[in-house]
Amino acid sequence: MEILLKIIIILSAISTVIVNTSVVINRWEDECELEAELVAEIASYENVTKRIMEEVRTNYGRTMYHEYERFIDKFGARPSGTEVLESSIDHMINLTKYHGLDDVTTEELEVPHWVRIYESAKMYQPHMKNIAILGFGSSVSTLPQGITAEVIVINSFDELEKTDRKSIEGKIVVFDAHYVSYGKTVIYRSQGASKAAKKGAVATLVRSITPFSIYSPHTGAQSYENNVTQIPTAAITVEDADLMRRLQDSGVTIVLHLKMFYRSDTKKSRNTLVDLKGNLYPEKQVIVSGHIDSWDVGQGAMDDGGGMMISWFVPVILNTLKLKPKRTIRAILWTAEEPGLIGAQEYLKKHLHELDNINFIMESDEGTFKPLGLDVAGSPKARCIVKEVLKQFTPINKITNSGYPGSDIVIFVEKGLPGASLLNENERYFWYHHSEGDTLNVQNIDNVAECAGFWAAFAYVIADLSMDIPRQ
Amino acid sequence: MEILLKIIIILSAISTVIVNTSVVINRWEDECELEAELVAEIASYENVTKRIMEEVRTNYGRTMYHEYERFIDKFGARPSGTEVLESSIDHMINLTKYHGLDDVTTEELEVPHWVRIYESAKMYQPHMKNIAILGFGSSVSTLPQGITAEVIVINSFDELEKTDRKSIEGKIVVFDAHYVSYGKTVIYRSQGASKAAKKGAVATLVRSITPFSIYSPHTGAQSYENNVTQIPTAAITVEDADLMRRLQDSGVTIVLHLKMFYRSDTKKSRNTLVDLKGNLYPEKQVIVSGHIDSWDVGQGAMDDGGGMMISWFVPVILNTLKLKPKRTIRAILWTAEEPGLIGAQEYLKKHLHELDNINFIMESDEGTFKPLGLDVAGSPKARCIVKEVLKQFTPINKITNSGYPGSDIVIFVEKGLPGASLLNENERYFWYHHSEGDTLNVQNIDNVAECAGFWAAFAYVIADLSMDIPRQ
Repeated sequence: MEILLKIIIILSAISTVIVNTSVVINRWEDECELEAELVAEIASYENVTKRIMEEVRTNYGRTMYHEYERFIDKFGARPSGTEVLESSIDHMINLTKYHGLDDVTTEELEVPHWVRIYESAKMYQPHMKNIAILGFGSSVSTLPQGITAEVIVINSFDELEKTDRKSIEGKIVVFDAHYVSYGKTVIYRSQGASKAAKKGAVATLVRSITPFSIYSPHTGAQSYENNVTQIPTAAITVEDADLMRRLQDSGVTIVLHLKMFYRSDTKKSRNTLVDLKGNLYPEKQVIVSGHIDSWDVGQGAMDDGGGMMISWFVPVILNTLKLKPKRTIRAILWTAEEPGLIGAQEYLKKHLHELDNINFIMESDEGTFKPLGLDVAGSPKARCIVKEVLKQFTPINKITNSGYPGSDIVIFVEKGLPGASLLNENERYFWYHHSEGDTLNVQNIDNVAECAGFWAAFAYVIADLSMDIPRQ
Repeated sequence: MEILLKIIIILSAISTVIVNTSVVINRWEDECELEAELVAEIASYENVTKRIMEEVRTNYGRTMYHEYERFIDKFGARPSGTEVLESSIDHMINLTKYHGLDDVTTEELEVPHWVRIYESAKMYQPHMKNIAILGFGSSVSTLPQGITAEVIVINSFDELEKTDRKSIEGKIVVFDAHYVSYGKTVIYRSQGASKAAKKGAVATLVRSITPFSIYSPHTGAQSYENNVTQIPTAAITVEDADLMRRLQDSGVTIVLHLKMFYRSDTKKSRNTLVDLKGNLYPEKQVIVSGHIDSWDVGQGAMDDGGGMMISWFVPVILNTLKLKPKRTIRAILWTAEEPGLIGAQEYLKKHLHELDNINFIMESDEGTFKPLGLDVAGSPKARCIVKEVLKQFTPINKITNSGYPGSDIVIFVEKGLPGASLLNENERYFWYHHSEGDTLNVQNIDNVAECAGFWAAFAYVIADLSMDIPRQ
């Protein structure tokens, strides 16, 4: 999961909205009065959804999981702009055809290619110590000789604002903001470098955006403001952030030496589209999606190997089960989500004239742990329909309305499209996110198979209903 | 906590004994019939133990915690044979005197000094991937050009035995034994290299001995058998062990390249003895202990900074509170526990003639999380006395009899001395143990202060009772 800077900025505004919408949720939930005919139509899908769930849980979902395992172990991390990402895209294209679905196309675009070459950090004062770091995507390098500078530990942008320029100039700013939520805390990673540079900092190190750590740094995207000096920026562990905070509080001077070397250019990559053509309204679409790229650490198994795989699986399994819905189901494997939804943005631009044809858009990019339900954006009636459909998936029937479903699809939802992201038991998601810990070890075959069954069965119903999902 | 190889070998034998003793525990617990006079005497300590607990919890223990924090942040990792370990010992000596206790002595001994210089592992086949490793203490180096060899993944020593020599010769053996318990699983770390070398392996990599991982390798001691080729040996993460297992199962050939450089010699170090002399039987002792050395990763905060600190604190706080028991309370800060109880062994040898004077021996080396009670070794009557004393510490009154209390003190217990180690809520102990994750972050001021109060108050009662703790 990644978050466009644009979206991050929107987020603080949204947090207030969430509070309000929760009231709204209760209202529309109470007032869900769908036409009896529609309720009956939805109920008529119960046999087919049960069949899909069951077939996937006990059989096809397990085969899919082993394909997922092979994919993850074969390619591992798949950063934007790399050959390994392109090979992994080819692999998925071939796998689609192998499973008897030939309607797979790609759309080429230019993507960032940022390469981690070498990075190290050492504490020189008060004593020698290695400090684990993980540079943020798009960080510039230090000079070849590195940077040796004093540290100032800062808790928040407020504190940065209040600190006089002299106390910051020439220093490495360590942002020590404790994890509150991803949305609230990630701003130090995404915006910290430019904010500190404006006050004369020479580099920033940011406490990893995670509620739990075993000395694991977490990378992620960041962005420089225009016309501000670009300074190197990296994650440190929660443990080292706490250490430096304690050392500073005890009056000790901290000096670090940083060497960080990265290379940046652009490459070609592809969004991959897998279509199961609708048998009545082929021009209308239900989109299911996940991103195929990952960060360059760990295996990208959780973020977003799992989500990409269960979304790819929707048209494939429905085709295998000979279940062709009225509308087209399009699985999209987004490319270059991590550097800032690059694939999704390009897709939106290219398909802007045909958004009316997108009936519903879905994304799984927050884990494929035990499935719980959906986070839904759309009109009250759209949400009522989703709620009615979810009844037959009980206990996978939780429904929320965060205003921010998924990451790639948010830019579509902002255009008024109804959509949903997968809710799952992802309490530990940020323990592993963007770190070496994002491996197959965090996954579980039963959970992934259950997610896959739910995802396919839900998408099938939405794509097959006689009624389009109504917009605002 | 470390485990002497000798003890590891004993362990499998003990595991059977544990089953039996649990029956014995029930028997002696039912049959605890202490003399009424002794019960009354123990009960008479209730005011003083409450006072100690309270003073430590609310006041002195918190000051001690801040001293502990400063100690850990000042010295960090303190491996056997290093200057930083010796400086940390000097610091504790000075701290003792600063707190008004001058009776502090040291006993010099020779200790292993094994230095991690450089290590790296890369998977060459089936694809390029960095593999995190952490060499085991006393591992030999590879040749300068490193080792490039095929991998064979083996689950157990049984499987190793059954595998023909040709399948192992010239290969890197990856031991993929899943964590059952530390005692049962650590044998792959401690004995794996020689067992694999006997069948022609050129190196061993061992799945880290932990029930949970965020891609964190865990180091520890290992020992080569005599007259067996010494091969390099290191930990890998749980994640990479699982990856290599999956790759092997899928029929793929795995090739790794290892570079591992270490240096070994011996240095002088010291056991540190802090005495609060007894006011009636100064020649008799109650020993409280923890080790001051650590591995070379993390901060050695949990293993065993916390246990060392609360043990050191016992004579110091009792002196501050002007509570001089009848017998001497001796805090021992063991040196060089990690490479194999080197300090404790030397102490035992040197003090063998005066073991009769040791009334009771205590150790905290399994965490200083929320205290629960004691693991007690000794005669049924000794355990009954401990049980009676623990009543006044309720809810810290759990009592177990594992047959293996602590690590350093086991060699004393084997000589018939009664003793106890601290039970605490250490379910996550092995998540951090011997890894970069062993930092102050796993500690909590309230828990450590409560451990310290309990430890001091319990030791005080035992050291002041009119009766010696009876031996077998």
